[in-house]
Amino acid sequence: MTSATADSKEVKLPEEVHPRKASGWAAKDASGILSPFRFSRRNNGDDDVTLKIFYCGICHSDLHCIRNEWKNAVYPMVPGHEIVGVVVEAGSNVHKFNVGDRVGVGGMVGSCRACESCKQGFENYCPQMLQMYNSFDSDGTWTYGGFSDAVVVNQHFVVRFPDSLPMDKGAPLLCAGITVYSPMKHLGLYEPGKHLGVVGLGGIGHVAVKFAKAFGMKVTVISSSPSKEKEARERLGADAFIVSSSMDQILAATGTMDGIIDTVSAVHPLMPLMILLKTHGKMILVGAPEKPLEVPAFSLILGGKTIAGSCMGGIADTQEMLDFAGKHGITADVEVIPIDYLNTAMDRLGKNDVKYRFVIDVCNTLASS
Amino acid sequence: MTSATADSKEVKLPEEVHPRKASGWAAKDASGILSPFRFSRRNNGDDDVTLKIFYCGICHSDLHCIRNEWKNAVYPMVPGHEIVGVVVEAGSNVHKFNVGDRVGVGGMVGSCRACESCKQGFENYCPQMLQMYNSFDSDGTWTYGGFSDAVVVNQHFVVRFPDSLPMDKGAPLLCAGITVYSPMKHLGLYEPGKHLGVVGLGGIGHVAVKFAKAFGMKVTVISSSPSKEKEARERLGADAFIVSSSMDQILAATGTMDGIIDTVSAVHPLMPLMILLKTHGKMILVGAPEKPLEVPAFSLILGGKTIAGSCMGGIADTQEMLDFAGKHGITADVEVIPIDYLNTAMDRLGKNDVKYRFVIDVCNTLASS
Repeated sequence: MTSATADSKEVKLPEEVHPRKASGWAAKDASGILSPFRFSRRNNGDDDVTLKIFYCGICHSDLHCIRNEWKNAVYPMVPGHEIVGVVVEAGSNVHKFNVGDRVGVGGMVGSCRACESCKQGFENYCPQMLQMYNSFDSDGTWTYGGFSDAVVVNQHFVVRFPDSLPMDKGAPLLCAGITVYSPMKHLGLYEPGKHLGVVGLGGIGHVAVKFAKAFGMKVTVISSSPSKEKEARERLGADAFIVSSSMDQILAATGTMDGIIDTVSAVHPLMPLMILLKTHGKMILVGAPEKPLEVPAFSLILGGKTIAGSCMGGIADTQEMLDFAGKHGITADVEVIPIDYLNTAMDRLGKNDVKYRFVIDVCNTLASS
Repeated sequence: MTSATADSKEVKLPEEVHPRKASGWAAKDASGILSPFRFSRRNNGDDDVTLKIFYCGICHSDLHCIRNEWKNAVYPMVPGHEIVGVVVEAGSNVHKFNVGDRVGVGGMVGSCRACESCKQGFENYCPQMLQMYNSFDSDGTWTYGGFSDAVVVNQHFVVRFPDSLPMDKGAPLLCAGITVYSPMKHLGLYEPGKHLGVVGLGGIGHVAVKFAKAFGMKVTVISSSPSKEKEARERLGADAFIVSSSMDQILAATGTMDGIIDTVSAVHPLMPLMILLKTHGKMILVGAPEKPLEVPAFSLILGGKTIAGSCMGGIADTQEMLDFAGKHGITADVEVIPIDYLNTAMDRLGKNDVKYRFVIDVCNTLASS
């Protein structure tokens, strides 16, 4: 039995071709409601690592995907791409991991390894990048994500998870962490003394604050919610706080920031934020509002300013980010949930009702779900 | 007698405080019509150089200014900021220029020399940057530009004009040249083999093509006018040509360009152009459409792409640009006009009816006008 994808490629159901039984939770349609799902994984190949999944974070993009808000969903869909687990099998060509190692997998599980992006360490921008889930794998099956008991992944896309980090609080780094670390590194926004603005204090934003503080930067949180000032300063260590609707506060900080990471995916005006940037300041977008950005060209031209988009990061950078997090004790603030709380968690995530990331305790709760 | 500026600072008329008689052409109101005008320049100070103006290019921004399209015009206004002339007087502290030297002056004649931008060589982004004309000078007078017989300028803002370049064809480099050279240099778009798109084949665009070819780059001109293909390829040496309205042509060049310089100040969609960029590709805006840009965030995020604004360039870069142009024989394609043709030239410029830059023969035609 086969089913057709959106672009009419022939997709084989894993159950047909994969001998390894797997279980997880899947969305079956665009309602996005998740329920237990039995499927299969491929056997561990020579270059593969099989992870027993311990924890999996819930990213806001999982919510977009299960509800088909990006119009590319194929069901059943097993989401999840902030995975931490332990190696239970390693192929004959795998030398950097051993059975029993703590490892992580993030948003991608394959790329061409030959294009300019791959050669430069940006597998995340490879045109053939294979996503952790909802992607068409090379063996003709559809990929399934981390809301499941185990996953088989090519070793190149697996990273070592530092012993010093707790698995649950560290899981979100596999997406939220690399999403901020990569552009901060490659756009030069990681030097002590530089000033970073962080727009939006959610799953990604709060991790951005932590990395920036660990880099020795000055950090200003910019949020639409005045109520977040206390936690931004006291819990996360931000140096300053600006309410985004206050032109007085924005004008008082005119031209003071080397860069801004904008994590907000709701539609919002960029213009007042551009004022905050110094000459040659950089606005980094990691959230994607539905409507196009509206930016006066003058706000870029006068001051030589930049708006840069960024999506995840490469594998070497992901390892570097985790090692840095391990050294500096950077983790996400999480609410650990049993897997049968998933639909409630998704509803709450849709209302930004979480500080700041849900993480599923897969290992202890999936078997009994 | 004094007059008030838009922001109510007190402006002294140069005639009151300046002993040096000057003549030029000025706009007297927002009609933008230019006519002969007698005014004054300050005496040459210890750090000043006085230029007898030979040629002055006409930039599209001159047209915006005289018609008060940027809402900051103070009349009478003597425009012109692409000035080439000869030193006729040099102050006691001036050691890098001698009387008789060929020199140039561009869009700025002052800056604080102490801020971060100035110290990094980006006087063009200094908050106190003093524009060649329509700016409030430190002595309380308003600055007047290059559509005039002579100008007195602090030596820091004067550059050597290479002996190998003709003055008339070289004049536009003082604005159009540095406008493209500076972002190409600072955004890494000047390496042999890289591929640059140039949007708009006008005064700035055609100079961008010439610099890019001199850098050894592949150049594709992107224009709304299919009729420009022949001149782009044959006269300017472009390697390829894309009609911006042809999605077929754009799709065929998907992901091939390291960068694009967009010189068009008419409102136009950026989105199809973003497709042309490689991963980490850079879109440089040097033209400022009246309406805000509309750009889907996804077009930046997927591919880690950047939109950067840029305005002119610093003085050291301007000298470097001119020296490079001198070495490689880069000049603008110009139509040299007598100064009494100015109003006709402005009308034609408004219709883009010039290939590609008007340059006023000030020296030979102003006295008789």
